[in-house]
Formats: sequence, C-alpha cells, structure tokens
Amino acid sequence: MVTVGRSLLAFVLLSVSMISFAEETHTLRLAQTWGPNSPILGETVQHMADMAEAMSDGRLQIRIDPSNKHKAPFGIFDLVRNGQYDMGHTASYYYKGTIPNAMYFTTVPFGMIAPEQYAWFYHGGGMELMQRVYEPYGLLSFPGGNTGNQMGGWFRNEINSLDDLKGLKMRTPGFAGEVMAELGVAVTNIPPGELYSSLERGTIDAVEWVGPALDFQMGFHQIAKYYYSGWQEPGAEVQFLINQKSWNDLPKDLQEILRIAMRTAAYDMYIQSTHASGVAWDRMKEDYPDVTHKVFPPEVIDALRKTTNRLLAEAAEKDPLAKEIIESQRDYLQQVRQWTNISDKAYLESVAED
Amino acid sequence: MVTVGRSLLAFVLLSVSMISFAEETHTLRLAQTWGPNSPILGETVQHMADMAEAMSDGRLQIRIDPSNKHKAPFGIFDLVRNGQYDMGHTASYYYKGTIPNAMYFTTVPFGMIAPEQYAWFYHGGGMELMQRVYEPYGLLSFPGGNTGNQMGGWFRNEINSLDDLKGLKMRTPGFAGEVMAELGVAVTNIPPGELYSSLERGTIDAVEWVGPALDFQMGFHQIAKYYYSGWQEPGAEVQFLINQKSWNDLPKDLQEILRIAMRTAAYDMYIQSTHASGVAWDRMKEDYPDVTHKVFPPEVIDALRKTTNRLLAEAAEKDPLAKEIIESQRDYLQQVRQWTNISDKAYLESVAED
Repeated sequence: MVTVGRSLLAFVLLSVSMISFAEETHTLRLAQTWGPNSPILGETVQHMADMAEAMSDGRLQIRIDPSNKHKAPFGIFDLVRNGQYDMGHTASYYYKGTIPNAMYFTTVPFGMIAPEQYAWFYHGGGMELMQRVYEPYGLLSFPGGNTGNQMGGWFRNEINSLDDLKGLKMRTPGFAGEVMAELGVAVTNIPPGELYSSLERGTIDAVEWVGPALDFQMGFHQIAKYYYSGWQEPGAEVQFLINQKSWNDLPKDLQEILRIAMRTAAYDMYIQSTHASGVAWDRMKEDYPDVTHKVFPPEVIDALRKTTNRLLAEAAEKDPLAKEIIESQRDYLQQVRQWTNISDKAYLESVAED
Repeated sequence: MVTVGRSLLAFVLLSVSMISFAEETHTLRLAQTWGPNSPILGETVQHMADMAEAMSDGRLQIRIDPSNKHKAPFGIFDLVRNGQYDMGHTASYYYKGTIPNAMYFTTVPFGMIAPEQYAWFYHGGGMELMQRVYEPYGLLSFPGGNTGNQMGGWFRNEINSLDDLKGLKMRTPGFAGEVMAELGVAVTNIPPGELYSSLERGTIDAVEWVGPALDFQMGFHQIAKYYYSGWQEPGAEVQFLINQKSWNDLPKDLQEILRIAMRTAAYDMYIQSTHASGVAWDRMKEDYPDVTHKVFPPEVIDALRKTTNRLLAEAAEKDPLAKEIIESQRDYLQQVRQWTNISDKAYLESVAED
C-alpha cells in the first residue's frame, strides 16, 4: 500500500499541476483613451474583452480602465510602454509628437477607405511597417476598429471657393488642421465640452468631429446646417497596443485568442460605425430638415490635395522609414482604388436614384 | 494508509476526469462546395480551421473535405442537415430550389454592398431572419466570407441600349439570370470548364463570373474586351452551415471559439478579395491594354431594377417570411445607403482623378 500510496501521490501532484497550468488565469490591465460608457469606441474594447474571456473559458481576463481612472487619455502609449498597463486602446496618430511615423497607421488625408486599408494592413505590408515603428518601444500594435469615412465637418456657411476658407475659424485637429491652416483657415483648438457653445456664439464658424454616429450627441446639426463630406480621414483605424513582455508571458493559445478577439473587434467596430451612422444621419435629417449635405468644390479639393502631398513629401525627405511607409501606402492605394472604382463606386453611381 | 490511499485514489480519479474533460478533442467534419486548392473560398475555410485549432490549443479540429471527396458541391445543405457532415461552407442561394427564402442571405440584385450587409446581419435583424429560415432544418447559418462587389460580366460587344440585350447569348446563373431572361437575353448554363472555349468560339457573347480575383484564371479578358460593372451581386456573402446537434455537443468555450473563427474568417475573406481583385485587375490591364471598363447605360439599369423589383414583389406575395426578409433588407438599405452616399461615395467621387 505504501508503494501504491507513493505512486498515487506522485500522480496526484502531477495531475494537480497539470490542472492548475491548464486553468491558470491571466489578467491583463488595459488603459483606454475613451471615458466610461463611451459609445462605439469603448464598446469595442468591452466587446474584445468579452470575446477573449468567453473563448478562453475565463482564463484570459482583461480589466479595462477608462480615462477618468488613469487620467492620461493621450498618454496610453507611455502607460503601456513603461508597463503600468499591459494593453491600451487609443489611436496611433495621437503620438506623432513622440513618434512622427505613428501618424500614418490611423488614416491619411486622401488615403484609403476602410476595406482598402485593411487590405493594406493584412496583405500589402502595412502590419510589418507598423511593427517596425512600434518595436523599438517594446510594443505590439494591432488595428483596433474603424470609424468609417469621417465627415469634413459642420459649417455655418457654404464653402464655394478657396476664398471662403480664408480666415474661417474652424476646429479641426492634427494633420488635417495643418493642411487647412496652409490654406488660410484660422485653426483653433477648443475642448470638446465647449464646442457646441462656441459654434452657437460664433466663436468658430465650423467644426470637424467624426461622423453622424458620434456627431449626433454633440448637437452641431442644430446650429450649422451644411454637412460636408470629408477628405481628411477616409478610414480612421484606432489601435490596440500591447506591451511585448505582457504578450510574451501569455501561453500560445491565449496569444491567439487575444489576437483574434482584437481582429474581430476591430472589424466589428467598422460595421457598428456603419450601422450607427446610418441611423444617426437619418434621424438628423428627420429632426432638422434644413440640414444639407455638401461636397467641397473641386478647387478646394485640389488645393487640399496639393498641400497634403507637399507635407507628405517633406516628411518623406526627413526620414527613410517615413518615406517607405508613405510610398507603400501610395502605391497600394493606386492599385486597390482602381478596383474600388470599377466595383463599389461604379455600382453606387449606377444605382443612385436622385 | 488505507484511508489515505482511498481518498487519494478518489482524488486521482476526479483529477484524471477533469484533465480528460479539459483536454478532450472535438473533431468536426466540414464539407465545402469548392474543390481542393480553391483560391480565396477554400483558403477561407482552412484559415477558419487553423484559427479554431490554435485558439483551442488543438481541442477543436476541423477536417475539411473538398468537393472531389464528397461529390456534392451543391448538396452541402443536405449533407449537413442529415448529419453526414457537422459543418459546411457553401452559398445560401444555391439552395433556393429547396428553400426559396435561402436566396436572400447571399446577395440580392440592387442590394447592399458588403459593409452595409454585415451591418444588416449584425445590427439590422439579418441574423435573426436567417436563423428563422434555417432553424426548421436543424441548422445554424453564419456569414462565411464576402467576394466584394461582383462584376456584371465580360462582353464581346458594347451594350449601349436595351436592344443590345435582345438575343444576347450569356452565361449568368441564378436570380440575375431570371432577370436578364425577362429582358430578352438568351441565358445559357454552360459548365465552368467550357466557358472559355464557348466565349472564344462565339457560342456565348458574354459571361458573368465573379470579379477580377477569380476571373483572372478563367482568362475571359483575353477574348471579351468590355468588362462591365455589376448590378446583380453587390456583396455576395458565402456561408458556414452547422448541424444544430453538432453545435450543441461542443462545450461553451469551443462554441465561442468556432463562432469567432467563422466571423473573423468571413471578414478576412472580404479583405482578401479586395486585395486580390486589386492585384488581378491591375495585371489584366497591363497584360491586355485593350480591356475596357464599362457601366451599363441608365436605360438598361432602370429595366434591370424594375424587373428585379417585380420578381421580388411576386416572391413577397407568395410567402409572409419572404415578405418580411425583403422588406427588412429594403428598409435597411434605404437607411444605410444615405450614409454610404455622403461618406464613401462622395469621397470616392471627390478625389477621383480622371
């Protein structure tokens, strides 16, 4: 019996260690740019965490801190880089101050729309280029969800020529703001909470936010009646960041569960944005029938494009990796857009009833 | 020692059963419509199986049989329904002979493009309607990958009016073929392997296949020089079918792994199709510079649309569930298309350089 007892004991210890290995829970802490109860963006993070937990039978837990918790909505890059958090959900172009090349992985003016850009990421070398930008910081970066094509903004008055842009007071951040400034727009940076009253009081003449889904709650359509199609963010892709060490600590199956949960959540956000924008735009027009859709005239589009290309060429000249990214995106766009033009564009034009 | 030995033994048995439960392998047999080494479509099935296996650490295995194995490329519905296979990868509209309402879950002429249709499936009630159609057969159905917007076909001569369609000998199957026939087209059904020579010999004047990615290997561009944009399959979504009993036999975590693997594979196929069509169209134009892109003139589009609407109205009158599906798709399209028009369509038109 003693011998049997001993071998049983050895087997029990082995079994217990196997069970505890199989059932070990891994908890990742995630910091997001967005506040609590953030529609679409915050929902995407929660959706990703829910999928990861369900697929791993609870072995992979993601604990999410919104911005009111960590107080650094635009500092996610640092929080994940220095290991205070394992993961982040944010947008690459917020970090162009620290890493200028991070800018290209969200969206670029006159660039690709969402499906074209996913094709570039997954089949056109985009993921590899993004990884070369983030690797030196000990980070992995993955697509984190697409807003769809962003609108050019809400304008109190029509824009019929380049002259109408001169001196126009507009809230439009980032690279698009730089381009607008070159055309004479007085670009201002007003906190989100004051945008509605600034537009109402005439402190600004125009404001660019996202698209119907997220613009609706801001209420700009109640004041500014001209809603312009965009040129500046044709497919803004937010981002999951992961600390390389936290990633390495996960067993292979949980790495794969996490990778697929992020990939699906990103696609799902694109589809949710499509849905929510359809619903919101329909409601805006119903509640405020004088809201009018507009497109910028060709001379404005041409000037915006020329300025964009000049700024990109300057960036490419300063940095070989920037050059490589810009050229990869430009060449890929040139190829894939020919296809988009004979498929979705031609179809949408053929069937348009107006 | 005896007492200890017994409790140890009980614990060992418990442990062993827990381990074997945790590590039990589930193997699902899948029949696909496509042959072996099928590009994009077959790759999507393999991609799904690979993700499921990696995420489950090998506990979920999918064994794939191509059509040369099961000999029933258009009988997947029955193979899965009667339990010969646990799963299938096929297209819902192949089964309209058995279930007329299956037709609407692939694509509909003048219907939604891929992102709009995914939004309808996941946010507009599409999944619920699809389940109501498949539930009576003990089946679950999930989106299985999108081809993107399909082209209207390769034509030896230009189509400038409705008259040019009269007597035209064309290969175009399914619902689109019925619509074309109403407009006087002599619709023929020729096996895929004979299409190239039929087009070459003039047995047919035109052929509709898929889009550049899959048309390339067929070689139609070497003969017919006019490549028309489509109207008939604006976003063809293929399908994963699962036998309800096979699904119920899976533990909850593997169900979730399978569900997400299918969802991701479907999105990934849409993106792979986008990429592959861009590459193939570029190469077709380079190798055969006289290949010309065309759109059908408005009078042809109008006639095709009126005929489509009439056939849909007839189907709706015959069956209350058909009516519900057709109205759900029509209402959803009406809403979401407004958004597509002011975002991607307006953008693509604004930035087009031609």
